[in-house]
Amino acid sequence: MTVKQHKIMLDEDEIPTRWYNVVPDLPAPPPPVLHPGTLEPVGPDDLAPLFPMALIAQEVTTDSYVEIPGEVLDIYRLWRPSPLYRAHRLEQALGTPARIYYKYEGVSPAGSHKPNTAVPQAFYNAQAGIRRLTTETGAGQWGTALAFACAQFALECEVWQVRASYDQKPYRRMMIETFGATIHPSPSDLTEAGRAILAEHPDSTGSLGIAISEAVEVAAQNADTNYALGSVLNHVLLHQTVIGEEALLQLAKVGETPDVIIGCTGGGSNFGGLAFPFLREKLAGKMSPQILAVEPAACPSLTRGQYAYDFGDTAGMTPLMKMHTLGHDFVPDPIHAGGLRYHGMSPLISHIYELGLMDAISKPQSECFAAGVQFARTEGIVPAPEPTHALAAAIDEAKRCADTGEEKVILTALCG
Amino acid sequence: MTVKQHKIMLDEDEIPTRWYNVVPDLPAPPPPVLHPGTLEPVGPDDLAPLFPMALIAQEVTTDSYVEIPGEVLDIYRLWRPSPLYRAHRLEQALGTPARIYYKYEGVSPAGSHKPNTAVPQAFYNAQAGIRRLTTETGAGQWGTALAFACAQFALECEVWQVRASYDQKPYRRMMIETFGATIHPSPSDLTEAGRAILAEHPDSTGSLGIAISEAVEVAAQNADTNYALGSVLNHVLLHQTVIGEEALLQLAKVGETPDVIIGCTGGGSNFGGLAFPFLREKLAGKMSPQILAVEPAACPSLTRGQYAYDFGDTAGMTPLMKMHTLGHDFVPDPIHAGGLRYHGMSPLISHIYELGLMDAISKPQSECFAAGVQFARTEGIVPAPEPTHALAAAIDEAKRCADTGEEKVILTALCG
Repeated sequence: MTVKQHKIMLDEDEIPTRWYNVVPDLPAPPPPVLHPGTLEPVGPDDLAPLFPMALIAQEVTTDSYVEIPGEVLDIYRLWRPSPLYRAHRLEQALGTPARIYYKYEGVSPAGSHKPNTAVPQAFYNAQAGIRRLTTETGAGQWGTALAFACAQFALECEVWQVRASYDQKPYRRMMIETFGATIHPSPSDLTEAGRAILAEHPDSTGSLGIAISEAVEVAAQNADTNYALGSVLNHVLLHQTVIGEEALLQLAKVGETPDVIIGCTGGGSNFGGLAFPFLREKLAGKMSPQILAVEPAACPSLTRGQYAYDFGDTAGMTPLMKMHTLGHDFVPDPIHAGGLRYHGMSPLISHIYELGLMDAISKPQSECFAAGVQFARTEGIVPAPEPTHALAAAIDEAKRCADTGEEKVILTALCG
Repeated sequence: MTVKQHKIMLDEDEIPTRWYNVVPDLPAPPPPVLHPGTLEPVGPDDLAPLFPMALIAQEVTTDSYVEIPGEVLDIYRLWRPSPLYRAHRLEQALGTPARIYYKYEGVSPAGSHKPNTAVPQAFYNAQAGIRRLTTETGAGQWGTALAFACAQFALECEVWQVRASYDQKPYRRMMIETFGATIHPSPSDLTEAGRAILAEHPDSTGSLGIAISEAVEVAAQNADTNYALGSVLNHVLLHQTVIGEEALLQLAKVGETPDVIIGCTGGGSNFGGLAFPFLREKLAGKMSPQILAVEPAACPSLTRGQYAYDFGDTAGMTPLMKMHTLGHDFVPDPIHAGGLRYHGMSPLISHIYELGLMDAISKPQSECFAAGVQFARTEGIVPAPEPTHALAAAIDEAKRCADTGEEKVILTALCG
């Protein structure tokens, strides 16, 4: 019997000490974020009611790398480096000559990639003297991550969860409360934004856009309270690049270079976190993988949305961002992949897509579920609904390789 | 800032290749299992309707070690070796000079230690030509583990879940079904045993003893069907010793010797799996840790039960085992630690307890929940209700060390 290695591990002292910023390496800079009143580019002061200056600086930095603070690395060490798995048993079931690797972020406190940015966000806010963070959450991963991160820095945490997920996933709520946060179903009657929606749609299942409006409203009205976003923004994607940086080291350990990199996309942070460090290598001519985003057919912002300036939230309280969007008042079907039910796509990923540096497709829920079941039965990990979108595309690619005989190296990310 | 290592890892080629059998090292052999009709010791033929001969041989072996088959090691590699964590952040919160380590089995397909034995049980049954396995499950970890294991060897799997847990934990049911098994709430109307209970107690919340009766009944009546038990029996504890063997290697890597080993106990397999390899070292005079079992106050078989011959199931279909028992018709409160709601204790652990080689205490649910919340907020892992019993005792010990200044090394196991 051949002994096969399943997990490619790194030591704790191999955790990257810098986050990677893809912006300066792009052939053209991303369009500015605009003030909704003046339609002029926003400055740091416009964002100050919501974010600490350290994060605003990261949002607009043109440095290629940002140092990870020691306090953040200390907490990363609870679960990082995360394992890179070779999916031997899935490959065998598919009869494919392709080699499938998945970076597994399920070892984190939330079971997803979200704590990679929740921890630094809580850290910088605590440093700035903030007492409380508000946020929205879909399926609950981001709320869980921020609740955990706030507990590390003695910050209060208040979460508005999209009602569809609040009702479907009570265990997430319990987990968020276990970490010490408070949680409300959204739309709620606690905010102007929530009350306005409820007046018109008393049975609203909610949306990430609505929940963002509620969380932003509370943060904007309280000087000791800031807002934290789990995806979409540049600084969030910056923090997530720790995933791709580790994956690069891990693939190098086994002498592999990826041919296809596949990630699911809602707001875009899981995808960007995995793909950006590889995009750097691609832009430098060191490798040439296809980079593929997979989104739900029920919420296809990248593949079916317009590339236009739009609000990040439903009530229109945020600055205007140029992004692929279905419209800030779009309320997607309450599919199970709650983390992908966002009307827009990260402006940075939208820009990279427009530059032709990556591809995108959409997948229906049923096909993703089938892929998730096949993955669970072979690899032993029951994936969250979100990454099954990427798994479905990875399985497609591996099956094509079974037909063509190509020994492609496929890399994907298993987030929660 | 001091860089502290949180995770002590082993390479995949350091997975132990042998399970350890504690029996030959004990100062006295355990009492025999008796046939309920003749009250004579049971022979292999008495167990053959339920178990394949390979497992029956392991149940009674006097060899010190049993080789782990290559096919089983191949599947173990999906998650093993599991990490050993140093609980730096919990220690800090407790202000203790004690060093707390936890062996984390949550990385397995079921999120617990259970697949360590589910996989070999499915393997030996498949080798013997069995087509289907039946079993019981409490909180659902064992059912999940066996469902996963059966999927690896193309066996059908049918699970009876204690109704209290079936109703409390729908996500476990979904996970069991994702792995391809069928699941029924117990007591069910599918068996004589279940129908008899329902006739008397239509609202029965069930018990592991009842669910075992149902699963055993179906296995005994069908030649192509065997039964698999997730704890209690010698061969189950044997398979779990892979936990303690790895922990020994991991502690040695950081130059530590445990002073206290604490495990939660329901049927006893998590506890035995962790403790037995250390008990071997203790009996050989190489270390002298206290070995402490912690059980729920609501189901205190070891601390409050009788040491007597009793049935393993409620209906009285199994052989008689000498064990600490609350009586085979005892139905514990539907506490959340469903995996610890068993009327008896592993005969092997009961025997070791009688020999004075270990200690036992019980803990109320509320204290365990508080310990679990403190652990989650510091270490970032939300523990299952079962191991919070061990965590509560570990926290007690660490607090004592804070008072006395003792730098004890505490080892516990985080199972799901």
